[in-house]
Amino acid sequence: MGSNSFGNIFRITTWGESHGVAVGVVIDGCPSGLLLSEEDIQKELDKRAPGKTFCSPRKEKDQCRILSGIFEGKTTGAPISVLIENQDADSKPYHAQKDLLKPGHAHFTYLEKYKVFDYRGGGRSSARETACRVAAGAVAKKLLQHYQIHFSAYLQQIGKLSVMKKEWEGKMIRQSQIFCPDPSIEEKMKMLLQQLIEEGDSIGGVVAFYVTGLPVGLGDPVYEKLEANLAKAFLSLPATKGFEMGEGFAAAEYKGSQHNDLFTEKSTLRSNHSGGTLGGISTGMPLFGRIVFKPTSSIKKKQTTINYKTKEKATFSIPPTGRHDPCVAIRAVPVVEAMLALVLADALLMNRAIVL
Amino acid sequence: MGSNSFGNIFRITTWGESHGVAVGVVIDGCPSGLLLSEEDIQKELDKRAPGKTFCSPRKEKDQCRILSGIFEGKTTGAPISVLIENQDADSKPYHAQKDLLKPGHAHFTYLEKYKVFDYRGGGRSSARETACRVAAGAVAKKLLQHYQIHFSAYLQQIGKLSVMKKEWEGKMIRQSQIFCPDPSIEEKMKMLLQQLIEEGDSIGGVVAFYVTGLPVGLGDPVYEKLEANLAKAFLSLPATKGFEMGEGFAAAEYKGSQHNDLFTEKSTLRSNHSGGTLGGISTGMPLFGRIVFKPTSSIKKKQTTINYKTKEKATFSIPPTGRHDPCVAIRAVPVVEAMLALVLADALLMNRAIVL
Amino acid sequence: MGSNSFGNIFRITTWGESHGVAVGVVIDGCPSGLLLSEEDIQKELDKRAPGKTFCSPRKEKDQCRILSGIFEGKTTGAPISVLIENQDADSKPYHAQKDLLKPGHAHFTYLEKYKVFDYRGGGRSSARETACRVAAGAVAKKLLQHYQIHFSAYLQQIGKLSVMKKEWEGKMIRQSQIFCPDPSIEEKMKMLLQQLIEEGDSIGGVVAFYVTGLPVGLGDPVYEKLEANLAKAFLSLPATKGFEMGEGFAAAEYKGSQHNDLFTEKSTLRSNHSGGTLGGISTGMPLFGRIVFKPTSSIKKKQTTINYKTKEKATFSIPPTGRHDPCVAIRAVPVVEAMLALVLADALLMNRAIVL
Amino acid sequence: MGSNSFGNIFRITTWGESHGVAVGVVIDGCPSGLLLSEEDIQKELDKRAPGKTFCSPRKEKDQCRILSGIFEGKTTGAPISVLIENQDADSKPYHAQKDLLKPGHAHFTYLEKYKVFDYRGGGRSSARETACRVAAGAVAKKLLQHYQIHFSAYLQQIGKLSVMKKEWEGKMIRQSQIFCPDPSIEEKMKMLLQQLIEEGDSIGGVVAFYVTGLPVGLGDPVYEKLEANLAKAFLSLPATKGFEMGEGFAAAEYKGSQHNDLFTEKSTLRSNHSGGTLGGISTGMPLFGRIVFKPTSSIKKKQTTINYKTKEKATFSIPPTGRHDPCVAIRAVPVVEAMLALVLADALLMNRAIVL
Repeated sequence: MGSNSFGNIFRITTWGESHGVAVGVVIDGCPSGLLLSEEDIQKELDKRAPGKTFCSPRKEKDQCRILSGIFEGKTTGAPISVLIENQDADSKPYHAQKDLLKPGHAHFTYLEKYKVFDYRGGGRSSARETACRVAAGAVAKKLLQHYQIHFSAYLQQIGKLSVMKKEWEGKMIRQSQIFCPDPSIEEKMKMLLQQLIEEGDSIGGVVAFYVTGLPVGLGDPVYEKLEANLAKAFLSLPATKGFEMGEGFAAAEYKGSQHNDLFTEKSTLRSNHSGGTLGGISTGMPLFGRIVFKPTSSIKKKQTTINYKTKEKATFSIPPTGRHDPCVAIRAVPVVEAMLALVLADALLMNRAIVL
Repeated sequence: MGSNSFGNIFRITTWGESHGVAVGVVIDGCPSGLLLSEEDIQKELDKRAPGKTFCSPRKEKDQCRILSGIFEGKTTGAPISVLIENQDADSKPYHAQKDLLKPGHAHFTYLEKYKVFDYRGGGRSSARETACRVAAGAVAKKLLQHYQIHFSAYLQQIGKLSVMKKEWEGKMIRQSQIFCPDPSIEEKMKMLLQQLIEEGDSIGGVVAFYVTGLPVGLGDPVYEKLEANLAKAFLSLPATKGFEMGEGFAAAEYKGSQHNDLFTEKSTLRSNHSGGTLGGISTGMPLFGRIVFKPTSSIKKKQTTINYKTKEKATFSIPPTGRHDPCVAIRAVPVVEAMLALVLADALLMNRAIVL
Repeated sequence: MGSNSFGNIFRITTWGESHGVAVGVVIDGCPSGLLLSEEDIQKELDKRAPGKTFCSPRKEKDQCRILSGIFEGKTTGAPISVLIENQDADSKPYHAQKDLLKPGHAHFTYLEKYKVFDYRGGGRSSARETACRVAAGAVAKKLLQHYQIHFSAYLQQIGKLSVMKKEWEGKMIRQSQIFCPDPSIEEKMKMLLQQLIEEGDSIGGVVAFYVTGLPVGLGDPVYEKLEANLAKAFLSLPATKGFEMGEGFAAAEYKGSQHNDLFTEKSTLRSNHSGGTLGGISTGMPLFGRIVFKPTSSIKKKQTTINYKTKEKATFSIPPTGRHDPCVAIRAVPVVEAMLALVLADALLMNRAIVL
Repeated sequence: MGSNSFGNIFRITTWGESHGVAVGVVIDGCPSGLLLSEEDIQKELDKRAPGKTFCSPRKEKDQCRILSGIFEGKTTGAPISVLIENQDADSKPYHAQKDLLKPGHAHFTYLEKYKVFDYRGGGRSSARETACRVAAGAVAKKLLQHYQIHFSAYLQQIGKLSVMKKEWEGKMIRQSQIFCPDPSIEEKMKMLLQQLIEEGDSIGGVVAFYVTGLPVGLGDPVYEKLEANLAKAFLSLPATKGFEMGEGFAAAEYKGSQHNDLFTEKSTLRSNHSGGTLGGISTGMPLFGRIVFKPTSSIKKKQTTINYKTKEKATFSIPPTGRHDPCVAIRAVPVVEAMLALVLADALLMNRAIVL
């Protein structure tokens, strides 16, 4: 089983806590012969880099080291172990409130389940774990690029502000501080975020993704459908509350005669309401979908809670020096991209075993 | 791997095609000592029963037989094999259009992936496979009932018509022909469905679920979060396009100070925006969420398509005597319930191994 | 997990009890496009056929039916469900001794583990389950034959009588009633078996296997080594007590300078002490090994035991009309062959995902 | 899948090469609340410590660090990451012979499979990987000790010299430099080893194990039998060629009336020919078995081989300063113990999910 592992053939195992020595990931099942360097991974980790305005000011370096699986610049087929040291894990600010249940956090459920919880940070429920996903996703990305599969994720919505178009150039996304490809919407989003920082509050958001270059045939019936594995991947992320493919929830209002994508003589589709799969298998059309994130639970505003030892009422707010993200969806953008890459790389390898 | 299996400890494997001899499921990992009869399973299969108005008029019996795993009325810990014969699999109506790609169907992707496709029905992509999920879900349900966990699913939306309340008595759901617990909405839905039947068209829909009696602690970090496994379960269903928990996509518009559920002195929560989990682990509060289904792809209206052998244009519509569901979400209600039961039963058993 | 499943990509799940309605197997992950008929499976089941002299006189037909996964004579990539009805399951002879612990049987451990046991037969511990392995193995065999991989198993030893040569023509094995390819040894073995039948006793035995045509590269480091999966496969069989590859236990007396197989200029090996693998990966040389089976536990000789309900002493012997195998290793020959095929087919498919 | 992982619930993943920066293991599924320190792991690693006479003189420190999963001295239920740096990885001696196929080594098969091989050491096929197994086994051992399960492994045979008794005090084993509990045999073994060192040759050997305190009920039918998982565990070790339980291969010469272990009124067994399991499930009697290791492949004696690039004949021997173990079975003793612990810990946790 292994609840800290993800994937079938291309399979990752992550470990480490936000306030421990380091976090890391073991990537098993990557084919041999792939060019891979620490820079490839570092580049992706830097995207997730905190310290940007509008993101938590943790000054961690997130410097990765590849400890195994590479020989003369290429993968060998052996597991690739990546380690990221925790540089900036000052747990002192958390001491004063260590017995308080943090609203919206996993402190309570972990305590009930495991009878122990590391009050210094979120432990395994911390977003810090997602750095490992990004590192592993960087390897998956290299593999997919080899097969001409390209994809991107972007901040599609926060509050009532949203980007309408589905496909965006990667350049437009990368040049935005908040991964929002539409400059006019980006401006408004930044104003909203600035206001939330002042209020000590946070906001929910939606990350969208778009993949091109997928061959027909990825995804396996019945329980390894492409969208089933994407759904698991995304809903395993901290703070996610939903996932939709293609038209998603809007499909409830469609008629069949409108929603069905019709075939052309070239075996492609005239439209793409389905978002790129039929029967859980890629159609060769672009793959797209959306993932919703709840507002950051850790806010500076005071909230009532309880002390779980004394069972008395208390007031909780993150310390003035503590980290604060006005919108967790922003930092989630490269993480969504990573999970996407992991699912697609696995589907690609699984697809090799299915015909004689 | 096994792409036809689902679950970790409580694990099912389904097999069979819509136009084959039979379909079936092997349920592995069910604890010994559980009272179980064919009636328990039949009762659930009957809920999914086609032949009801507004559902496809296939007159299949869906009579199940338990072939193993039971001794003197109780489970033994051995795999439970359930077989359902296909009674009404007349494939003749499909012959005429056998080389046409059916819009919205998996025919195309299966052909590309496996180089073969059984034109007589949907093969493994057919909704017929879900009968096996319902049979397995019936066993999971019995297990959950033993631990006082109760749940229900219902038709929450079709088109623009939707039910507003989250919690409904099971009785209200069961007495509706279309699993809609709100009689006033049900009436309108039926009118819409009747109109679609006349048009030879279909409509999308949303199924909601609600679970009570869950203990704190079900679900495993990081990749076996309760919502991650639910997401995979639901998105593995035919025709699903999205899943959301708690406030779901609406959470994008929430502020953290509104969305956070605050703890009471009794270690419960004042509100339940999260929908019953924190950090992927159940909080003890009700668990709820929604799953969207696209409109039925098979419609009587004519649609242009191609003949995949000749690559010529063609017109496709399901034959007059063929089956036609105006809204696949209706029949999906008991299937959603089954997947919910499978995920929860598995989480319950996984939770036994986590403390010393 | 699923303790009734075996294999990674080519994965089987078996179900059914010796005294139930039927036994069966679901074969998942078989590539599409393989020619497969019920005859292919029946032929293998017939090899295991009881009713032969020197084997238990159960007159079961072991008639198999393929219920899914085949279209127009070929596999489709969908799970192949095979069902074998239990024709001759007369449980009456077992009633009288139903509360006695049968020496050498799993009755005791099942009872302690599951709190229930079907006294009528061995339940899941019955050798009847191995019919399902043979059925699945027949499919794996067809796949391997497609790739020019051939193999055979034979009765190598019973008591102190043993066959010396490693490689034998399949014809020599098939023409022996007891799968012993050496006619002079076979004669002596039959005399020993006849004597045991008269004594109402049984004897242990060894089954050997020999595979040719394997490509270099099957088997995966570290925990999916070819010999590791073979070991698991064979030790999962009822009554097995050991497995060895190549020189096996005799290797303890070898020096390194004797045991090392030296490379020729053609990248093959001069000798084959290793038995066909290096580092868990096939070398392209013949693969061979041996599996030991304890003597059949069910004998006609009286043995003291206890009544597990009253805890009183008792005497147990299989009823005069009950089945009796003087040597379980004989019937194990086709089962060993089946497990071998399952492991190799899986290794073959796993090997497809390892290079760029 | 993950071919570098082992176990179901208590699941380990190892990584690292002999000549890389470090090797390590991630231990997932260990229950929370277990007292665990680096010393617990270091103690076991020291047993495997090379540098002892009769073992390879690598002067590695094998100093372990726990990087995650512990809080205030106890396990938290989170994955435990253990890292062991490679201190003494001088690859220079290997340069001169880097294109030669080393007899008895995986160099050849890895090259054929992955098209790449790190000539500096054995890569993933190196015995260095077993340090990670020992580290993980130390954690499993702590868990088993909590449940009063105790076990030990010892050197039972090298060449023609063997220890006869099955059960030995741990003290007798630990005070032997070569893990041989019988001082008179130990003396002879040492003489043989000394002679082999002088010859530049090596010898095969057998490691035996003995477990007491096991409850009835560990092990799961059908494919997760205790002996099946032990077999896989042991045959996944480098250099193993066989495994037997109880009477093992000697059972071929037993009659059923001799081999059957008879039940006493106290539901225990009079004898223990089976070696501690019936039907793959522990009987509560001591569990014992043997594992054979081929002679060390790396010897100082010259052996003919080929240069795989030029395909020309060559002569190979390990460099005078290179490491040389006269008998790999000696260092394997703590590794066998580790694999035993891993299998039993997993079986213990799996057993929690099987009754209502």
